[in-house]
Amino acid sequence: MNSNLSKIKIAIQSLIEINSKEWEYYSAMFNTRQYKKKEVLLQSGKICDNIFFIDKGLLRIFFMDKDGNESTFYFSQENDFAVDYESFLNRTPSNYTIEAMEDTQVVLMSYKMVVDGYKKLRSGEKLGRLLSEKYFIIFSRKIQNIYTKTPYERYELMNAQFPNIRQRVPQHYIASYLNISSVHLSRLINKKN
Amino acid sequence: MNSNLSKIKIAIQSLIEINSKEWEYYSAMFNTRQYKKKEVLLQSGKICDNIFFIDKGLLRIFFMDKDGNESTFYFSQENDFAVDYESFLNRTPSNYTIEAMEDTQVVLMSYKMVVDGYKKLRSGEKLGRLLSEKYFIIFSRKIQNIYTKTPYERYELMNAQFPNIRQRVPQHYIASYLNISSVHLSRLINKKN
Repeated sequence: MNSNLSKIKIAIQSLIEINSKEWEYYSAMFNTRQYKKKEVLLQSGKICDNIFFIDKGLLRIFFMDKDGNESTFYFSQENDFAVDYESFLNRTPSNYTIEAMEDTQVVLMSYKMVVDGYKKLRSGEKLGRLLSEKYFIIFSRKIQNIYTKTPYERYELMNAQFPNIRQRVPQHYIASYLNISSVHLSRLINKKN
Repeated sequence: MNSNLSKIKIAIQSLIEINSKEWEYYSAMFNTRQYKKKEVLLQSGKICDNIFFIDKGLLRIFFMDKDGNESTFYFSQENDFAVDYESFLNRTPSNYTIEAMEDTQVVLMSYKMVVDGYKKLRSGEKLGRLLSEKYFIIFSRKIQNIYTKTPYERYELMNAQFPNIRQRVPQHYIASYLNISSVHLSRLINKKN
């Protein structure tokens, strides 16, 4: 087996049962790809054709707000997935851009492959359900955090969800993720330390 | 067949194939219930045990923001579903309250029933996937609307998504849904008319 697929195999096996014959069939459809730091994996306006599984590296998912400013939505680290799932499901232009924050190695699950899996894998629909639930929970928490958490609470939640993110990402992206100014972020960091 | 189930049958058949034997088995697990205007179907802090399908009437889903103000998240009308799906899936206390805006008749799909359906219906996992995708899309659009749309654009989207909502719901709930003040809403309405 391609050694780059060992982590995604574990990730998928944590969601569904997949036997060796199914894995042989399914895993032949994966592609792997390397991206350099700052390279774009998905450009907003394009249809998102792949779910990216991060084997190594770090991705940032962002969109443009109504004032034309970048708003960082999510960071995807090793063993996590990255996708504009609405664009992926509905085959509509993406609202998000996905870019590499570090040199990053990903495994690509194409739309065709995922739809094929719904039919061909015994638990393909379950895999789709669990991936969908995973994205639903991310978005649900994001909304709750926007409305119900203070900036300091959001900062604490970010540190719990993305350990070491402050060492891996420039500070202005952290501020953008928290929806606060860089000055406000500095005050929060000083409060913590 | 209980005539109250005819609409939910159509809604489910629009998502999956379900044969008469499966429907006989599955539909026996539904409950139906009537709520008076202002009655609460789900109280925040409780685990959400049911997906509510609205046969007749109108529900409002809201939560408390960090300043202790009610924030209206969504309106569920006839033939739509209402649920705190994160609480429902994860069996955690709900962040949302669901209340009847009018005398409302609902069909209840319990958590137990949905999980049973994953196993017993041929397309049970697919039904779960499609319901999850539906909620994901609602939350995805909500986030996009918060960040990328002006209040007037949000107002136009609301009128498209919930026709006649302005005739069915007091104005302060509309303002709360749009995340603007009642004064701001009045200006938007005057701009439109």
